[in-house]
Amino acid sequence: MAITVLRAGPESASQAVEPASPVARFGPDEPLAMDAGVALAPWQIAYQTEGTLNAARTNAVLVCHALTGDQHVTQRHPLTGKPGWWETLVGPGKPVDTERYFVICANVVGSCMGTTGPASINPATGRPYGLDFPLVTIRDMVRGQAMLLDRLGIPDLFLCIGGSMGGMQVLQWAASYPERVFAAMPIATGARHSAQNIAFHEVGRQAVMADPEWHAGRYLDVGSRPAKGLAVARMGAHITYLSEPALHRKFGRRFQDRDAPTFSFDADFQIESYLRHQGISFVERFDANAYLYLTRAMDYFDLAADHGGVLANAFRGTRTRFCVMSFTSDWLFPTADSRAIVHALNAAAAPVAFVEVESDKGHDAFLLDEPAMFAAARGFIQAAARERGL
Amino acid sequence: MAITVLRAGPESASQAVEPASPVARFGPDEPLAMDAGVALAPWQIAYQTEGTLNAARTNAVLVCHALTGDQHVTQRHPLTGKPGWWETLVGPGKPVDTERYFVICANVVGSCMGTTGPASINPATGRPYGLDFPLVTIRDMVRGQAMLLDRLGIPDLFLCIGGSMGGMQVLQWAASYPERVFAAMPIATGARHSAQNIAFHEVGRQAVMADPEWHAGRYLDVGSRPAKGLAVARMGAHITYLSEPALHRKFGRRFQDRDAPTFSFDADFQIESYLRHQGISFVERFDANAYLYLTRAMDYFDLAADHGGVLANAFRGTRTRFCVMSFTSDWLFPTADSRAIVHALNAAAAPVAFVEVESDKGHDAFLLDEPAMFAAARGFIQAAARERGL
Repeated sequence: MAITVLRAGPESASQAVEPASPVARFGPDEPLAMDAGVALAPWQIAYQTEGTLNAARTNAVLVCHALTGDQHVTQRHPLTGKPGWWETLVGPGKPVDTERYFVICANVVGSCMGTTGPASINPATGRPYGLDFPLVTIRDMVRGQAMLLDRLGIPDLFLCIGGSMGGMQVLQWAASYPERVFAAMPIATGARHSAQNIAFHEVGRQAVMADPEWHAGRYLDVGSRPAKGLAVARMGAHITYLSEPALHRKFGRRFQDRDAPTFSFDADFQIESYLRHQGISFVERFDANAYLYLTRAMDYFDLAADHGGVLANAFRGTRTRFCVMSFTSDWLFPTADSRAIVHALNAAAAPVAFVEVESDKGHDAFLLDEPAMFAAARGFIQAAARERGL
Repeated sequence: MAITVLRAGPESASQAVEPASPVARFGPDEPLAMDAGVALAPWQIAYQTEGTLNAARTNAVLVCHALTGDQHVTQRHPLTGKPGWWETLVGPGKPVDTERYFVICANVVGSCMGTTGPASINPATGRPYGLDFPLVTIRDMVRGQAMLLDRLGIPDLFLCIGGSMGGMQVLQWAASYPERVFAAMPIATGARHSAQNIAFHEVGRQAVMADPEWHAGRYLDVGSRPAKGLAVARMGAHITYLSEPALHRKFGRRFQDRDAPTFSFDADFQIESYLRHQGISFVERFDANAYLYLTRAMDYFDLAADHGGVLANAFRGTRTRFCVMSFTSDWLFPTADSRAIVHALNAAAAPVAFVEVESDKGHDAFLLDEPAMFAAARGFIQAAARERGL
């Protein structure tokens, strides 16, 4: 009745392997300056690209991934074998058209798909960092991406786009490097994490830390993994990515493989079986400490607080054009969060379009087949391309 | 940084002690017929009363408690020392006026405050039942309460009232024993548990079961307790009892004892510290297996399914008068759930009043100081008392 987690094979993400992605390496003299006050060095960032950079270097698109995403935006995932996570939006002929644009997606600092994070080897000890890795912020992620662009010889971005934690990075890009972002599209996100969202993250972290296999973060040293705790964390988080109407439509109160309750703690209901599967499959591809670090980075995100408590100050004088998008049934980042961004952009006199997409699919809608989202994205991007002369 | 759970003293609920409550004992010849197909015997039910039963025995009020509640509705809690859990609503001069009514509240079957449950001794083995205890349903709880009323010589109830899981019992009372319920007041509840609510419960159960100290439910045998897992379950559940606006008002993004983040996994935010406290204090007073059983009972509750799929059928021919109440910010049992009950009562031609209380306090509002709730309850109960000739 308790969930059983299969042991991961040697390809497990928690073993800090490097998937087959290009990697930009930064040596001891090229540290990443982190908000925690640490100069991280050496460090590396794994990325994927799709399409061709034009001669003028004006058609680069940076796709920013969400909490548990990675650089495989259009490539088959090396661990799960699944299609790229945003093939609905990015690809040949898609709104982010890889026949016209040069698309880059990099695994964020603190994650576990080839970029330096808590599962990476700490050169000072020769062992995985674990909790000795410095806390990561959204701004640190963006600094790392900017260093990657420098390395790739890309002066600025035609478009910076992402959903959820990816949307936070888009906002941070627009605030930190306004001159390097021609157009920005933050989707299903907020300029700060709400108390309720921090609360859900904290429960997930406590679930990981409550697992004795976590070993105070040193599980890789002892060849273990807090798989059960991480699965519980993922199950809880997954509920927040959906919506009550979507759950009702998809599962309702339907029983699993039978008509009546078993009067046991087996997965009687389809929703239980589905959630257990989500938990189990997640731990096969994700490092537990990376989950702690990245949820914390989202909790800490508060763009207004970084600008004297006034969100508009983050965007004053910007020439970036924005398209802000939310989904009606998203209760993790409700439309009110997007409206707050739009109001701040209005106050900063920035050009901004706002689209609230009618959908019952909850927060995850941004990853799914939402024609209204695609139409709005296509329109915004094509208009921006015309302005950019692409 | 991980939560630390103090060892419970010998008064711990998980040791299946009997708090100082009256207890009705039922012997081998007086089994409780359970929906799981088991005749539970011997068994017992712990309860508290307040006020005086009148000579005609027409002024009895049954208060039904919620998931983690107990019989101490107006008495100081024997483990926590806190005031009774519904002293806001029940007491001398209160809407449920103990100077006029004889109030009974019994710990439900499957719980851990003196009524038989999974922490009780299984007479077949001489050890605590653990998971050998039969699965419990809301109907089982109500059958047990009816047997208690028989024992106390109370033919019928003037009023049956409760919130959340207590409201489910109120609905079940009205459906199972319509002739024994003069007035019914289900608050912040639903006639069935939604897919999202089942999902949240399942995450909590998995958190308990993931704790190695759970020992497949036999932790009492080995002198242990799944305290960390139960604390995580409680933390997650607690979020669902509140509301985003209430969390924002109470905690916002305020830091704990400082102005800036610590860049650590300490409880930086006040909301984190609050949640950890909720988790830790809960495990001091509640049995983990009882938590599994009672959440499951709520998941299984589906009053329409028990009546040919038509909720109105549960109430046909009833002469009970109802007052159904919901709270605007309750997203665990949203107003739509209460409306479904009201529509069914309308279809069954039952007398029903419906009150949606404006509150930003979420599901927990029914336990808090909500003058509009008190006023509506007072009006409904006084009118019913006049009809009853009290």
